[in-house]
Amino acid sequence: MPRMFRRMSAPAGLPPGTVVPVSERNGEKVRITVIDYDETRFEEKEVQSVEETLPFKDKPTVTWINIDGLHQPEVIEAVGKHFDIHHLVLEDIVSTGQRPKMEDFGNYIFIVFKMLYHDPRRDQVIAEQVSLILGANFVISFQETCGDVFDTLRDRIRKAKGRIRKMEADYLAYSLMDAVVDNYFAILEQFGERIESLEDELVIRPTPRILQTIHRIKREMIFLRRSVWPLRETISGLQRAESKLITQPTQIYLRDVYDHTIQVMDTVETYRDMVSGMLDTYLSSLSNRMNEVMKVLTIIATIFIPITFVAGIYGMNFKYMPELGWHGGYFGALGVMAGISIVMVIYFKRKRWM
Amino acid sequence: MPRMFRRMSAPAGLPPGTVVPVSERNGEKVRITVIDYDETRFEEKEVQSVEETLPFKDKPTVTWINIDGLHQPEVIEAVGKHFDIHHLVLEDIVSTGQRPKMEDFGNYIFIVFKMLYHDPRRDQVIAEQVSLILGANFVISFQETCGDVFDTLRDRIRKAKGRIRKMEADYLAYSLMDAVVDNYFAILEQFGERIESLEDELVIRPTPRILQTIHRIKREMIFLRRSVWPLRETISGLQRAESKLITQPTQIYLRDVYDHTIQVMDTVETYRDMVSGMLDTYLSSLSNRMNEVMKVLTIIATIFIPITFVAGIYGMNFKYMPELGWHGGYFGALGVMAGISIVMVIYFKRKRWM
Amino acid sequence: MPRMFRRMSAPAGLPPGTVVPVSERNGEKVRITVIDYDETRFEEKEVQSVEETLPFKDKPTVTWINIDGLHQPEVIEAVGKHFDIHHLVLEDIVSTGQRPKMEDFGNYIFIVFKMLYHDPRRDQVIAEQVSLILGANFVISFQETCGDVFDTLRDRIRKAKGRIRKMEADYLAYSLMDAVVDNYFAILEQFGERIESLEDELVIRPTPRILQTIHRIKREMIFLRRSVWPLRETISGLQRAESKLITQPTQIYLRDVYDHTIQVMDTVETYRDMVSGMLDTYLSSLSNRMNEVMKVLTIIATIFIPITFVAGIYGMNFKYMPELGWHGGYFGALGVMAGISIVMVIYFKRKRWM
Amino acid sequence: MPRMFRRMSAPAGLPPGTVVPVSERNGEKVRITVIDYDETRFEEKEVQSVEETLPFKDKPTVTWINIDGLHQPEVIEAVGKHFDIHHLVLEDIVSTGQRPKMEDFGNYIFIVFKMLYHDPRRDQVIAEQVSLILGANFVISFQETCGDVFDTLRDRIRKAKGRIRKMEADYLAYSLMDAVVDNYFAILEQFGERIESLEDELVIRPTPRILQTIHRIKREMIFLRRSVWPLRETISGLQRAESKLITQPTQIYLRDVYDHTIQVMDTVETYRDMVSGMLDTYLSSLSNRMNEVMKVLTIIATIFIPITFVAGIYGMNFKYMPELGWHGGYFGALGVMAGISIVMVIYFKRKRWM
Amino acid sequence: MPRMFRRMSAPAGLPPGTVVPVSERNGEKVRITVIDYDETRFEEKEVQSVEETLPFKDKPTVTWINIDGLHQPEVIEAVGKHFDIHHLVLEDIVSTGQRPKMEDFGNYIFIVFKMLYHDPRRDQVIAEQVSLILGANFVISFQETCGDVFDTLRDRIRKAKGRIRKMEADYLAYSLMDAVVDNYFAILEQFGERIESLEDELVIRPTPRILQTIHRIKREMIFLRRSVWPLRETISGLQRAESKLITQPTQIYLRDVYDHTIQVMDTVETYRDMVSGMLDTYLSSLSNRMNEVMKVLTIIATIFIPITFVAGIYGMNFKYMPELGWHGGYFGALGVMAGISIVMVIYFKRKRWM
Repeated sequence: MPRMFRRMSAPAGLPPGTVVPVSERNGEKVRITVIDYDETRFEEKEVQSVEETLPFKDKPTVTWINIDGLHQPEVIEAVGKHFDIHHLVLEDIVSTGQRPKMEDFGNYIFIVFKMLYHDPRRDQVIAEQVSLILGANFVISFQETCGDVFDTLRDRIRKAKGRIRKMEADYLAYSLMDAVVDNYFAILEQFGERIESLEDELVIRPTPRILQTIHRIKREMIFLRRSVWPLRETISGLQRAESKLITQPTQIYLRDVYDHTIQVMDTVETYRDMVSGMLDTYLSSLSNRMNEVMKVLTIIATIFIPITFVAGIYGMNFKYMPELGWHGGYFGALGVMAGISIVMVIYFKRKRWM
Repeated sequence: MPRMFRRMSAPAGLPPGTVVPVSERNGEKVRITVIDYDETRFEEKEVQSVEETLPFKDKPTVTWINIDGLHQPEVIEAVGKHFDIHHLVLEDIVSTGQRPKMEDFGNYIFIVFKMLYHDPRRDQVIAEQVSLILGANFVISFQETCGDVFDTLRDRIRKAKGRIRKMEADYLAYSLMDAVVDNYFAILEQFGERIESLEDELVIRPTPRILQTIHRIKREMIFLRRSVWPLRETISGLQRAESKLITQPTQIYLRDVYDHTIQVMDTVETYRDMVSGMLDTYLSSLSNRMNEVMKVLTIIATIFIPITFVAGIYGMNFKYMPELGWHGGYFGALGVMAGISIVMVIYFKRKRWM
Repeated sequence: MPRMFRRMSAPAGLPPGTVVPVSERNGEKVRITVIDYDETRFEEKEVQSVEETLPFKDKPTVTWINIDGLHQPEVIEAVGKHFDIHHLVLEDIVSTGQRPKMEDFGNYIFIVFKMLYHDPRRDQVIAEQVSLILGANFVISFQETCGDVFDTLRDRIRKAKGRIRKMEADYLAYSLMDAVVDNYFAILEQFGERIESLEDELVIRPTPRILQTIHRIKREMIFLRRSVWPLRETISGLQRAESKLITQPTQIYLRDVYDHTIQVMDTVETYRDMVSGMLDTYLSSLSNRMNEVMKVLTIIATIFIPITFVAGIYGMNFKYMPELGWHGGYFGALGVMAGISIVMVIYFKRKRWM
Repeated sequence: MPRMFRRMSAPAGLPPGTVVPVSERNGEKVRITVIDYDETRFEEKEVQSVEETLPFKDKPTVTWINIDGLHQPEVIEAVGKHFDIHHLVLEDIVSTGQRPKMEDFGNYIFIVFKMLYHDPRRDQVIAEQVSLILGANFVISFQETCGDVFDTLRDRIRKAKGRIRKMEADYLAYSLMDAVVDNYFAILEQFGERIESLEDELVIRPTPRILQTIHRIKREMIFLRRSVWPLRETISGLQRAESKLITQPTQIYLRDVYDHTIQVMDTVETYRDMVSGMLDTYLSSLSNRMNEVMKVLTIIATIFIPITFVAGIYGMNFKYMPELGWHGGYFGALGVMAGISIVMVIYFKRKRWM
Repeated sequence: MPRMFRRMSAPAGLPPGTVVPVSERNGEKVRITVIDYDETRFEEKEVQSVEETLPFKDKPTVTWINIDGLHQPEVIEAVGKHFDIHHLVLEDIVSTGQRPKMEDFGNYIFIVFKMLYHDPRRDQVIAEQVSLILGANFVISFQETCGDVFDTLRDRIRKAKGRIRKMEADYLAYSLMDAVVDNYFAILEQFGERIESLEDELVIRPTPRILQTIHRIKREMIFLRRSVWPLRETISGLQRAESKLITQPTQIYLRDVYDHTIQVMDTVETYRDMVSGMLDTYLSSLSNRMNEVMKVLTIIATIFIPITFVAGIYGMNFKYMPELGWHGGYFGALGVMAGISIVMVIYFKRKRWM
């Protein structure tokens, strides 16, 4: 749970707009890459400082500056200074507990959302914050670590696949969001498989361990939901934003990614309902088992208690007990016991307990 | 569950608008049929390629092009090319996990929704995606497999029943949607019957198998709901769309199919409530049974335990036990036991446990 | 349940607007009555065909045509032809599974809602569809069977009670709706009494039969709710309708019947909450009983099991058992047993189990 | 429950607007008091008929006519006649099951809401309907019985406390509503105390009686909620009403009483949540107790059943049982039994059952 | 709970606007501090009476008057008189049960919200009411006790950290709200830790004490939610308020604090879901335990009851019991018992009860 409930904001009391990185990866250096392209040209390079990206800024080509790592405040502040970004935006970029949102600052749009990936080591879904600054002909993206979800997009730009090289910077921003939302489907598919296999297991053998797994999935679904839900508003905010930064052709693509977000949420809701159903199944299967245990105990006890009593009677040491002297007494007693047992069994059969 | 949780979108990383069919029926060929009519003329034929349908396109008559099967991307792409359809629409047509929606592209309207049918082999409700492209004087419909829900509509066109031959293409699109929504009622009726028979069975004998059936119906209701719910918005979107493609006379028919959708949703909600009630009934009947089992055990045990104890006392081997020597000792002991039993039975009768 | 889940629409595949009556009462004839009045004159007669009502249509007086029975399509179609009613409205009139709604067709308003009455034979609340067509100076009402809920209204017109004879046709339509909504209160009062008597019974003795009754009431409440809920929208639709058919003085009466509908819904919600509370009470009273049963078993068992063991010890046949030879051995053993019992009883008293 | 579920409207079938009093206090006479004041003058008297109040009506001073008792239709009808009140308003005044609402009739505003008080005899919260008619310079208030909640307000007018004597009639109407809402806090405080003391009791000893009390409080909360919830709309309706009867200075006071209503609802919601939590606590404490009972039974049974069996073995009468002849046989057997007991106790300790 | 359910308003019956302090700290004196600053100058002092602050009021500098303690009505009334504050605002300031809200009075804005802090003595979250009056160039803040949450803000003003000294009074009001909202995160972090540690404990050993803690946290979450929820509206009200008191540059900061409020609510909702999940876990773990207890009892009982019966048979004293005389009878009987036990154990193993 370390990531889920970490600090959501700068420490209380600091002046708002102070860039205090939440993550603490000190050793590593922040990686800055620049991809600059238009329909005919393409340039890609890794730079050492924000200042090196400035020459690209004023070119008419589309420039994508990707910054992997938020732990060096000076890098973020340099971006703020050179690209004239509001200091509250810079604070939002580094405090990684942001809710997905978009804010239109006139000459740039700030978008923040969550990238999900499955951490195989901890067998847990991790949310990483991705921030975009969409300017006139550039996009600056910020990631916490260098994820690989944008690799295929980079490839598409390099090889001029699809129409990305013919479009403006807003299409690039859309493509980044689309890559992240597409990745949600992959995450959901994993969830779907886990839920299906859990269901099969639940039918075969319900154990407390399954209950814990169900609860963990349930909580991860809550977490997922809180990540995806505000994304819907964010994208519909982009659609409604009357900003000159969002061109007409991109509008239709935003509608498409919006639809995908709705689909993701639908699936999340369906999974939530399924997980709730599994909890019900688990609890009623527990009751069922208890019932079965009780029936076995009751059957055994109610058959043997009376006949043990009969044996107890003839175990008494009274001097004058006529039956004891009878020749067929013993077998008669055994017969009585058998009779009682048979009556009991018939009774249970009728009650459908056996 | 294969259909319910299959991939909902093109694989992540591909450029948006890539036509990647989700279904994989390779052997079969896509079937394309054209129905062309106006008030006086009628023509119906099966064609081999999209190109063959083009002559009908510019005629003033209403043309219905039906495409059964989405597994040949070249067919979909040909439609896109010749009818000037946006590539995102083509992607939506082939990725069959779409949420019902309508989109107005100016010179055509794209509508996607779910056709439900009951698969008798798997005893499951299957959702098949139906996409419509409503143009100036044509409708192109896409189905995953060739269903038979449109057969009566075809017949009506052929025989000029009702007013369909006198109306525009938008009435044809409406008729297709109406056929699908009417079919929902048939599906719901089946559900209604299953729920009723389950209820009767639940009263007679609750078994874990019934619980599983309840959970399956519950999940199918969730699934149904998610299919029908967005259809409401879709149709109300069509009603509100200020498109010249939707003529005034058809508006009133859209209102009618809208009302039907609301009725479907009402019924789905009622069934959901009923299924929830059945779960409650099941659980409380389990508790009831447990209670009954416990009562039997308690009655048997509390009657026999004390009298077995009495027998135990006189089974002791103490040398000096006065009662053992008494003449009526044995019968006295039996009498004491009978007395204890009678007291117990009276106690249980009073507690209404017997 | 026959009425609750019957077909809600014309069979799938028929052209929309086909008048297919849902009910199948073939023998009986549809009954048509005409009441024609203004402030001074009054005329009432039963006619054989729709055509006989036409002379009244163009008179400036208010004409109320009441049609009891929907099983003769020719009657409904005659109304449609002579009063120029849209064929979809005719379809809605005969398919009795309609959701309450109002539709403004310009020169007439179509209103459909549910009349509830208690069927004493089946001890069930039955919903019957009532449709109204409010024209310039006429109201046509359609009922499934001839109910008696409008009798007092007829009487008021005959005897010129209240202000009905001074008002327009829209006041007549309002009066019909008001009569139906007033009847809801009567139905609710019956429910209230059933719920109260059930509650008393639940406290005295909870049985599985009560559980079934609770579930039945719960389902009837769901059913009621679905009937009443859309009526609110219907009436507020009438209030907002900018139709010349609804005169200013009637507006205030519509607001009144709207308030009554809200009251009905409030009461339904209260009853639902009460019924849910009864389910909780039932389940926790089951748990309570189980608890009590378990306590009795535990008390009996834990008192007698140890002392039976003591008896068992002295029932052993070892040769060298010193206690057996003691003179006071037997009474000593009895004393030990009594001691154990007393300790146990004290323990249970402390635990408040006795 | 008599008050909660009484008839909510005039008997079905009567013409709307018929004044049929719901209450049936025949003996008592309706009490009419008039308070007439402006900044300098003050007059208070009890009158015998509505007609006596008419002289005050046209004076520029503020006139408050208070009518205690709704059981004399002629009084209400006289008010209707002399103050020109719509007959539907008169019907609403006497049918005491109204939902809180406000209606603007142009030259007067009709406000109806619920006054709550705790009936100590039945230990129940009773709702009494209060209706206000706010005219140009008069307020007519109707109560079912003569409550004392307005006494302090009367006193304030008499002694010219606060600013009431300087304000218009709308401020008087506001003051009446404010007195009622302030009284809600007193009622809620009583609830709060009952809930707190119940909680303490629940921790100490959960009994079925507590369950019943919880359910009763829960139902009273539902009842309260239904009384208060529509009051919010009523007051915000007054705020939004563009009526010349509501002066600018009073607006801010209405906002204040609106805030109080929200606070009341907040508290009601909090109490509802607390009561629900208590139900959970009750049920899980039942389960806990059951668990404890079961543990005691299991511990006693599983310790004594095996050792009783050992005793049973040596109680057998076989001729050749070597142990019986052993000298230390008896004590050996006792040792074995002690051993079994110790093992069991250790097992239970490990399982943390003891 | 003393703070949570105290009186929320002035006693019923008093004229509205009467300043009746809710808190009763009589001994202590109200502490009034003034901070006056602009970009270049800074002055801070503690004053004895409200009158001493008046010289600052008309200066163009920003003046922050902080009043700690609401128990001296004369202080509040002095503020009201000198700053021309509406008497209802004064009443709201002293009655500390206010719901967070903002009210625009034209020449000043009144804002009231809740400051949360954790009371270590009672181990409980306490809400303290903070009221702000934002005027043209002053802010007056009212606290119940002198909290330390504003200390860092004071420090920032003193040392001219951040941009506060360059901004108007509205930025000061924003900073006060921001400090309080930032403090919510600290409170939530404590909750997060308590929830996490509870979860661990719940897995290791569920006790009724944990249940109580869960319920307490649940209730505190309800309480928290009710404090934070209306704050959202309050801040969005400030954003939408078209007041000249709120300058353009501050708008963006209000949006930031709004986002933080949403985050707080998201976290509260997540915690609520987690706590609900813990309740489920607790209850199902109770069921599990019961199941386990029952299984042990059943296993022991069903193994020993039959073999005890066998021992009982050979303990009977019949004269003619052939087995008793057999040489291997005893060992045969033991063998039969062992056989029964083995069969039982195999049966339980198959049922997976062992």
